[in-house]
Amino acid sequence: MAFSPTYLDWNATTPLDPAVREAMLPWLGAAEPARFGNPSSRHEYGRQARAAVDEARARVAAAVGAHATEVLFTSGGSEANNLFLKGAAANLRPGVVAVSAIEHPCVREPARQLQRAGWTLHEIGVDAQGRIDVAAWQAMLAMRPQLVSVMRANNETGVLQDVAGLARDARAAGAWFHTDAVQALGKAELDFRALGVHGMSVSAHKIGGPLGAGALVVDKRVELSPLIAGGGQERGLRSGTENVAAIVGFGVACERAVARREAEARRLSALRDELCAALAGIGARIFSLDAPRLPNTVFFAVEDLDGETLVGRLDRAGFACASGSACSSAHPEPSRTLLAMGVEPALARAAVRVSLGRDTRADDVRRFIETLARVTGELKNLASIGA
Amino acid sequence: MAFSPTYLDWNATTPLDPAVREAMLPWLGAAEPARFGNPSSRHEYGRQARAAVDEARARVAAAVGAHATEVLFTSGGSEANNLFLKGAAANLRPGVVAVSAIEHPCVREPARQLQRAGWTLHEIGVDAQGRIDVAAWQAMLAMRPQLVSVMRANNETGVLQDVAGLARDARAAGAWFHTDAVQALGKAELDFRALGVHGMSVSAHKIGGPLGAGALVVDKRVELSPLIAGGGQERGLRSGTENVAAIVGFGVACERAVARREAEARRLSALRDELCAALAGIGARIFSLDAPRLPNTVFFAVEDLDGETLVGRLDRAGFACASGSACSSAHPEPSRTLLAMGVEPALARAAVRVSLGRDTRADDVRRFIETLARVTGELKNLASIGA
Repeated sequence: MAFSPTYLDWNATTPLDPAVREAMLPWLGAAEPARFGNPSSRHEYGRQARAAVDEARARVAAAVGAHATEVLFTSGGSEANNLFLKGAAANLRPGVVAVSAIEHPCVREPARQLQRAGWTLHEIGVDAQGRIDVAAWQAMLAMRPQLVSVMRANNETGVLQDVAGLARDARAAGAWFHTDAVQALGKAELDFRALGVHGMSVSAHKIGGPLGAGALVVDKRVELSPLIAGGGQERGLRSGTENVAAIVGFGVACERAVARREAEARRLSALRDELCAALAGIGARIFSLDAPRLPNTVFFAVEDLDGETLVGRLDRAGFACASGSACSSAHPEPSRTLLAMGVEPALARAAVRVSLGRDTRADDVRRFIETLARVTGELKNLASIGA
Repeated sequence: MAFSPTYLDWNATTPLDPAVREAMLPWLGAAEPARFGNPSSRHEYGRQARAAVDEARARVAAAVGAHATEVLFTSGGSEANNLFLKGAAANLRPGVVAVSAIEHPCVREPARQLQRAGWTLHEIGVDAQGRIDVAAWQAMLAMRPQLVSVMRANNETGVLQDVAGLARDARAAGAWFHTDAVQALGKAELDFRALGVHGMSVSAHKIGGPLGAGALVVDKRVELSPLIAGGGQERGLRSGTENVAAIVGFGVACERAVARREAEARRLSALRDELCAALAGIGARIFSLDAPRLPNTVFFAVEDLDGETLVGRLDRAGFACASGSACSSAHPEPSRTLLAMGVEPALARAAVRVSLGRDTRADDVRRFIETLARVTGELKNLASIGA
C-alpha cells in the first residue's frame, strides 16, 4: 500500500510474527531446507511433513495446558467453534444448548442451526459490564442444558469471564462446557486443564500466526462427529490434508505468544490505560471499564458521533481501528455485545474498538490520541453546524 | 532433508509453483509490499485484503468456467465435498444419495453420515476399467435420487468419467449433481458450465497452489446450509476469516495450471506411456489401461509383490510414490477403487501409484524405470528364496 497506517486492530487479525514466518518459509519452498509433502504419504516427504505437524501439535498443547492428543487442528477458530457445538450435538438427543448473549457469530450461528434442528436455544444474559449475569446463569443451569458455550474473552469489550467457575457449574449440571478462547490466547491466562472445560477453541492469526490454522482442544470424553469427514486425519474428527505450513506457524506462534504474554500484558495495559485516560478527557464512554479485561482492548464511544464515520475518518488520518467486530462489520447493525449489556442503540452505534499488539509503541498511541481528539472535534463541529 | 528423493506422488500434493509463492509472499510479510489484514475490516488493510480475495475469486472462476459469485472458498477439497453433500442435504427431505463406488473418502464418508441421518445411501458400481457401469447408472437413476456425486478423475487410477453426460441424466432425473474435480483441475478439461453440474470441488495444493485453499463451485439454485456458520463470509455459506495468502496463491495456481494444461498433458502423457511400456516389460499389470485417464497417473501392480513393501524400497532408493491413495494410506486395506473394479484383493494389495507433475523430467522417469526393474527383481528373488 502507498502508505502504512498505524495498525490498531489486532483483535481482527495480526501481521505474522517474523519468527513464525521464518518457521513457515521452508514449507513454502522459500527457504532452505525446502520441504513439502502430504503427511499421510509413506515416503520421505510425507514423514517430514508428519513430523512437523506432530511437533507443532506438541507446541500448541504445551502452550494451552493440554495433551497433544487433545489438540485437533482446524482451519481456524470459526471451524473449531462449529466443530464443538455441532459435532457434540450430533451425538446427543436434542435438548438445551445455552450460549452467552455476547458470543461471536461463529458460536451463535451454529447454536441457531441446532435450534432449527430441534434444540432449545437459550441465551445467557450479561450485566452492564458484559460479565455473565449471576441470576441468568443460575436460571440457565436449572434448564439442565446439554451444551454450554461461554467465551473466555470478548472480541469487542475484551471482558474476561470466570470460565473455570462457569465450567465447574456446568459440569456439575451434567453439561459439556465449551469456551471460545480465540481472543484470550496470548493475552490472558489460558490453561485447558486448569479451566476444566470440555472444549476450547483457539486460532493462529490472532496471535501472530498465519490465517488457515486453529484448533479445537477437546476432552476425549466428548463424543464428536466430524464436520469434515473423509480421509480420517485428526483422529477421524477433521479430515482433509493438514495445512502443514500454517500448522507449523501456529505451533511457533503459540509458543512465542505465551512466552511473552505477561511482559506484553504489562506493557500494553500501560498504553491502554494512557488511552483510556485520554478518552475520558474527551468525554468518551469506555465500555466494561469496571470488568476484568484483556490488556490490549479498548471499546469506547463518543456520544453523538457515528462509529463507522469516526473509523472512516481515522482510517484517512492513518489509523486502522474497528467499529463493532470485524467479522460482523459487513452488517451495519449496532454491536450485539453492547445491546446485551443494555447500552442504548444510539450509543452502541457510536462504538469504536482499538486493539493494541506486538508492534504497538507508546508513540503510536500518543499520535492516535492527538488525532482522535482532532477528528472528534471536527466531527462535533460539523454536527453542530448541521444542527 | 538430507537428500531429495525424486517426487513421483503429485496426486498426493505438489510443491508450490514458484510464481504462486511469489504472489503469496507479500501476504506473509516476506516480500514488498508487505500486506496483511482481515478482509472484513473497514480500513486500508482490510480493503487491500478484500481486493486480493476478489481478484483471486475472479481468477479461479475464469479457470473453471464459472462466474465469480459461484465460487465459494473453503479450506480445501475435503471441506468442499462435505459442504456440497451435507449442505444440500440439510435443505432436502431425506431420500436417496448416490455416490460412485470409487469416490474419495471425503465424498464417501459424508454420504455415510447422511445415511446415519436417515438417507438411503446407494453406491454406483464401476466396470473393470473403473468407469461408471452403464447398467448400474440406470438402476441408480430409477431410484429417483436427490443427490448424486461422481468424481471427474479418480485419484488412484486417473480414470476420467463422462461427467457432462452423467450430469445431464441426473438433472433429468431431478437430482442435484456434484463432481469432485480435485484431481482433474489442471490435468483434464474442466468447465463448470460445459459440464452442467450443480456443484464442483477443486483444491489448490494439487495444482502447485498452497495447502489451505479449495473451492466449491456451486449453482445458486442449490440451497446450501453452511458447515461453518458465523461471521457470514462467502455469502454466509462458509464463515471464518478468509485465508488471504492461500486464496491469492490458489488464484494464481489456477490460472497457471489451466494455461499450461494442454502442453503439460502432451509432455506428461509421453513420459507416462514410456513408463507403461517399461512396466509391461517387467510383467506389471496396469490398471484402467483402456479407459480415458489423466495424463500424469499410472496405477500398477507387480503380481506377488506387496505394494507397501515396494513403495518402501523405492523410497529408500530415492523415489517417492504411493501405494493406494495417500489420504487413506493410514489404513493398510487394499484400494477400494480396485476392489470396486473387481480386482482380486491379493493383486489390489500389490498396487503402486506413480503420478507425474510439473517438475518431472524424462530422466526422472528413466531412472525410476531402472530402479523399479532392479528392486522388483530383488524382491522376487527374496520371495523365491523364501519359498
